[in-house]
Amino acid sequence: MVGGGQGALIGPVHRMAARLDDRYELVAGAFSSDSGKNLATAADLCLPPERAYADFAEMASREAARADGVEVVAIVTPNHLHHAPAKAFLETRVHVVCDKPLTTRLSEALDLVEAVRRTGLVFALTHAYACYPMIRQARAMVAAGELGEVRVVQVEYPQETFTDLVEELGAAPDRWRRDPARSGAGGCIADIGTHAHHLAEYVTGLELRELCADLSTFVPGGQVDDNNHILLRYEGGARGMLWASKVAPGYRNPLRLRVFGTRAGLSWKQERPDEMTWMPLRGTARTVMRAGPDTGEAAARASRLRVGHPEGLIEAFANIYSEVADIVAARLLGRPTPGPVAFPTVEDGARGMKFIEAALESNGRGGAWVDARLAL
Amino acid sequence: MVGGGQGALIGPVHRMAARLDDRYELVAGAFSSDSGKNLATAADLCLPPERAYADFAEMASREAARADGVEVVAIVTPNHLHHAPAKAFLETRVHVVCDKPLTTRLSEALDLVEAVRRTGLVFALTHAYACYPMIRQARAMVAAGELGEVRVVQVEYPQETFTDLVEELGAAPDRWRRDPARSGAGGCIADIGTHAHHLAEYVTGLELRELCADLSTFVPGGQVDDNNHILLRYEGGARGMLWASKVAPGYRNPLRLRVFGTRAGLSWKQERPDEMTWMPLRGTARTVMRAGPDTGEAAARASRLRVGHPEGLIEAFANIYSEVADIVAARLLGRPTPGPVAFPTVEDGARGMKFIEAALESNGRGGAWVDARLAL
Amino acid sequence: MVGGGQGALIGPVHRMAARLDDRYELVAGAFSSDSGKNLATAADLCLPPERAYADFAEMASREAARADGVEVVAIVTPNHLHHAPAKAFLETRVHVVCDKPLTTRLSEALDLVEAVRRTGLVFALTHAYACYPMIRQARAMVAAGELGEVRVVQVEYPQETFTDLVEELGAAPDRWRRDPARSGAGGCIADIGTHAHHLAEYVTGLELRELCADLSTFVPGGQVDDNNHILLRYEGGARGMLWASKVAPGYRNPLRLRVFGTRAGLSWKQERPDEMTWMPLRGTARTVMRAGPDTGEAAARASRLRVGHPEGLIEAFANIYSEVADIVAARLLGRPTPGPVAFPTVEDGARGMKFIEAALESNGRGGAWVDARLAL
Amino acid sequence: MVGGGQGALIGPVHRMAARLDDRYELVAGAFSSDSGKNLATAADLCLPPERAYADFAEMASREAARADGVEVVAIVTPNHLHHAPAKAFLETRVHVVCDKPLTTRLSEALDLVEAVRRTGLVFALTHAYACYPMIRQARAMVAAGELGEVRVVQVEYPQETFTDLVEELGAAPDRWRRDPARSGAGGCIADIGTHAHHLAEYVTGLELRELCADLSTFVPGGQVDDNNHILLRYEGGARGMLWASKVAPGYRNPLRLRVFGTRAGLSWKQERPDEMTWMPLRGTARTVMRAGPDTGEAAARASRLRVGHPEGLIEAFANIYSEVADIVAARLLGRPTPGPVAFPTVEDGARGMKFIEAALESNGRGGAWVDARLAL
Repeated sequence: MVGGGQGALIGPVHRMAARLDDRYELVAGAFSSDSGKNLATAADLCLPPERAYADFAEMASREAARADGVEVVAIVTPNHLHHAPAKAFLETRVHVVCDKPLTTRLSEALDLVEAVRRTGLVFALTHAYACYPMIRQARAMVAAGELGEVRVVQVEYPQETFTDLVEELGAAPDRWRRDPARSGAGGCIADIGTHAHHLAEYVTGLELRELCADLSTFVPGGQVDDNNHILLRYEGGARGMLWASKVAPGYRNPLRLRVFGTRAGLSWKQERPDEMTWMPLRGTARTVMRAGPDTGEAAARASRLRVGHPEGLIEAFANIYSEVADIVAARLLGRPTPGPVAFPTVEDGARGMKFIEAALESNGRGGAWVDARLAL
Repeated sequence: MVGGGQGALIGPVHRMAARLDDRYELVAGAFSSDSGKNLATAADLCLPPERAYADFAEMASREAARADGVEVVAIVTPNHLHHAPAKAFLETRVHVVCDKPLTTRLSEALDLVEAVRRTGLVFALTHAYACYPMIRQARAMVAAGELGEVRVVQVEYPQETFTDLVEELGAAPDRWRRDPARSGAGGCIADIGTHAHHLAEYVTGLELRELCADLSTFVPGGQVDDNNHILLRYEGGARGMLWASKVAPGYRNPLRLRVFGTRAGLSWKQERPDEMTWMPLRGTARTVMRAGPDTGEAAARASRLRVGHPEGLIEAFANIYSEVADIVAARLLGRPTPGPVAFPTVEDGARGMKFIEAALESNGRGGAWVDARLAL
Repeated sequence: MVGGGQGALIGPVHRMAARLDDRYELVAGAFSSDSGKNLATAADLCLPPERAYADFAEMASREAARADGVEVVAIVTPNHLHHAPAKAFLETRVHVVCDKPLTTRLSEALDLVEAVRRTGLVFALTHAYACYPMIRQARAMVAAGELGEVRVVQVEYPQETFTDLVEELGAAPDRWRRDPARSGAGGCIADIGTHAHHLAEYVTGLELRELCADLSTFVPGGQVDDNNHILLRYEGGARGMLWASKVAPGYRNPLRLRVFGTRAGLSWKQERPDEMTWMPLRGTARTVMRAGPDTGEAAARASRLRVGHPEGLIEAFANIYSEVADIVAARLLGRPTPGPVAFPTVEDGARGMKFIEAALESNGRGGAWVDARLAL
Repeated sequence: MVGGGQGALIGPVHRMAARLDDRYELVAGAFSSDSGKNLATAADLCLPPERAYADFAEMASREAARADGVEVVAIVTPNHLHHAPAKAFLETRVHVVCDKPLTTRLSEALDLVEAVRRTGLVFALTHAYACYPMIRQARAMVAAGELGEVRVVQVEYPQETFTDLVEELGAAPDRWRRDPARSGAGGCIADIGTHAHHLAEYVTGLELRELCADLSTFVPGGQVDDNNHILLRYEGGARGMLWASKVAPGYRNPLRLRVFGTRAGLSWKQERPDEMTWMPLRGTARTVMRAGPDTGEAAARASRLRVGHPEGLIEAFANIYSEVADIVAARLLGRPTPGPVAFPTVEDGARGMKFIEAALESNGRGGAWVDARLAL
């Protein structure tokens, strides 16, 4: 693991997710640039000190030299520290699970796409929301044509976290999200706007064609955007709206996706991830439940408990880790790899970076329509 | 009453609303251009045949000639038949309650504003959703500064009604809503987009400054827009999004408004009109109920039943009628009129027409930003 | 109208309900035993003073002597003043709409049953919750066998109103509900327990066979019960639970009924009266909406607005008034009366009194099982 | 681990829970009485075959003989196989985590209480619902007096699973739940009634004094109860109702607890475990969220993710395992053990068995009131 030292927010979630299905053992890390914290974290995790490395570069080279070196690395650092470690491990033939957004610039993202394709390694991006069973269910239903032709996509991801913050306030663990040097030029849009953008593409299977963005920085002294209002036009003619916000008091994390086609609509909220509302045209709305009677194979594969026994975000994260393990194990054993990849990929990450750059460009031009396509 | 003949949808709602508080007696009408239907409707309503007029013009002139002529007229015809009767009755000194949108063109709307101001008569526009007690509560809370400074407005009004319609299908009672000759150039935007636009301005007290509209016509053969995605910029810096749709399967009428300020957010859905969610920043969300402990005077004045005993849309409509009656009665009795007008006015209607025309212009220019201000 | 003087809670609801569908004209009343209040109420309602009577007896006899005397009387007094006026008007051949519970003693209730049967007049009891469209829908679905054989009934009606009250506190408008001299021996059970009991019988079509009641008086100094826990056994083998409470903080009026059969379950809450949750066995729960695609004739007849446009309790009350008017008008015109009576009847009221008396007896015997059948 | 062989339902949940916080290593098991399945399960779990034992007795004795023998055993067998293995491991000084209900007879339960007290070992019973953070929050609020004095407890746990089952139908994994030889004399009451009973006592801190039970067996040919209607009287005067059912179509697992005191009420549903509704008397209901602003220490200790990021049942289960590990580790290290035990104990299990036996006795006597106290 790269990042995830004591006090980190997302590192422990990755570790729990990796443990849940017993497919991984954590054997090495470069947890912090602070060497004391790095060693202390290793000790907490019962790692021998020699496998707590000073930095990712040392870790990549020395693990590559070991017969029992790491097979998969998790990168859980701030955004500006995704590209270099990912590249380093890919070059030493280590599979990568990387936090989102992929990088801080599209050019870096494209560089990673190239490296993944060249090396043939597995690369997963932890848009974990896409790995909830009911999101898999939604995607399968859209793909099977149960909505008919998709016309309208409404996605939103509001939080309150920046509302009353000014620059002076904070050394909070996620203060780096408001610092362009570490988060990239995008603030809210990079942190959660990309989640929303990804989820919409993931479920609908549609690629974004163009967008018109009105990005705001409401918080006094803010250096990055904190509210995103974006109009979306997809390939094939569907239209959408995306709202992401860090200034929505009372909203903790209610990522929500709604998709409407010619035959039905669906609605899903991450705060109640085990449910999806299915709305057939001129019919009666149904509450479809994870592991319930109307869910299919895609959801079942991503599910652990019986209906009515709640699963949560750690389980969604764990699906990424276990799906990566399935492929890695199959290759090691010389078996055919399992079916199509369900977890978010490096290409998804690159499209996310294109989305960020297009939105920033649109906003910079006063809210003009901008091409958001990315040929990969 | 003008319009509202047998088979009409909204006419009976107006009549129930006018009766609820026992402030009106229905004494005359021009219910239908079909004279048989006109007379039959009058008979159903126990009116004498001589007060069932062939058209609004005859009704206006002959009622004006009677000592016991109508004091208030309700206009419940399709959009293209609002301006002329409203004007006619204003000119004969009859107060007007008119269905929305105000007219089919801004110029007609401005003409009515002029007539109302000149005559000094009462004019109410039935954006009835603005007359739910909890909307009054929301408006009062914003006005009192309980949200702090408003930053973000999210309003949506989705329906499924046009989803599978093509022109050939229908003589449905509201087929005129898809016919530009009767609805005006706007389809979805005129019918329900204006409700959403009005509700947002009504609650926030903010005027729209500019907008960027992406209007679609998804239904094959459709002559008017059936989906509206609109970015909003308000005076003072607040930003918003408006989604109105006639192609959202499963959605019956869930008009929803959310407003976020520097101190709190609020959320209201018309399908559960007696509740509002109040979300203080970094606090715990509260379900504020009509006639409950956290509601104030504005809501109380618009409320009839104790907490927990549901009120509905007829009651919201009735608030308009009764508030008009309060003013008319006060004038007749030479008493001071009650406090500030709470019901939607002719000026609100004109701003709605400006909103429609600006959105159509923006869309016609490929989604450009367009000035939406209207000096009145 | 008998009762409903200035300051009364339920009288104005009856009057709005009677007006809504324009089937009644209020022409006379004995609104209050306080003659000043009686006359003032009459004046508020634009009645001539000679038809504001000192008491119900005078009203019954003098109206009977008029050619234009009342045809239907509404009795909206406290419980101990239901029997005598109801009897008096029945004897002068006036149809009756009476508030619930029917009387304060079963013997009085049986006396009214006899009078209604002897006179052949119409008698409606305002268990208004039974007149919501979705309750009609639920009843029709049970009757049609869509639930299969009913096994389990869960009904609850909690409020917070007595929680912190002691006798000294109050001259609140409904203080009489805590006074056995006016409410009868039952407190909570008479006021809202009977609503719950009725609703369960009304929807399931099952009669209660026996019950076991644990009634509490938590409020210090309370003279009547304020919490009811009751086990129910119905004819045919279904079992149920009834919870009614006046000491449930935070609960305003969420009367709720759930019925489970061999094939499906249903759930309805009065706070959201336009919805019902339908739960087929091993299927996906559906939110059935008033005037929506899965509702039938019984609901449609009790419904005024299109789907998604909320109706409330006044409309449910109005259904009783209009259904009574339908029968009275048919008889006056010599036409066949409409189909089976949908509103609650005098027999329902007598069964409610039997329920109260059986529960009080059970509780008095320490929570013994008691026969609750009533042969009518 | 004892039990939890291939195909088992609850065993894998225990294993995930034990892994989540990285406090356990699974080193030995007696997974199945079928030796092939036993070995295959061990292989799946990467255990050496010599630590896959033929039965719990062999495992207890041989692990006791190893220097690296198990320190904690998880017992996840059907009910009739809880007592003997628990006793065997306690006698060899191994701490126990045991599935619920504790045993099939009260006498066995008391025997385990004696053994735990005599040995001083740790014993946890997996009423995992009691280990959700918001249940800990609810318990802390009751204990702190925020509800005032508790008056009313409403608890329910309905499922649909037996609704259409007859004995002939099934070799389903949980068929043993309907076989008195394996589940004990109680069916629904042993399986889920005890969960409800425990949750109510756990949150309120009140002990049950007496009960009156109406147990049904609706399913034709059923050998155990499938619906439980129980009135409850607690020490100190609070009253309650408990509904547990296996014949409630559409209900998957919505365990729900509501508690009402003199100052406030609270409501929690396990299908949305991260939320609790808090209802102050005559105040506005609040949705309290896990890790949100109104949650305290007890909830925080049981919580892993930030507010708005859902946790589920595996996490609740994991709390038991980690809290047991805290105590075991403290003892091993000679440190003071952490504060009061939060997980359910052997005494809770014994009280659960008393509850079952009292309910069966009450029902056998036609629904009489029966003493439910247990002096421990």
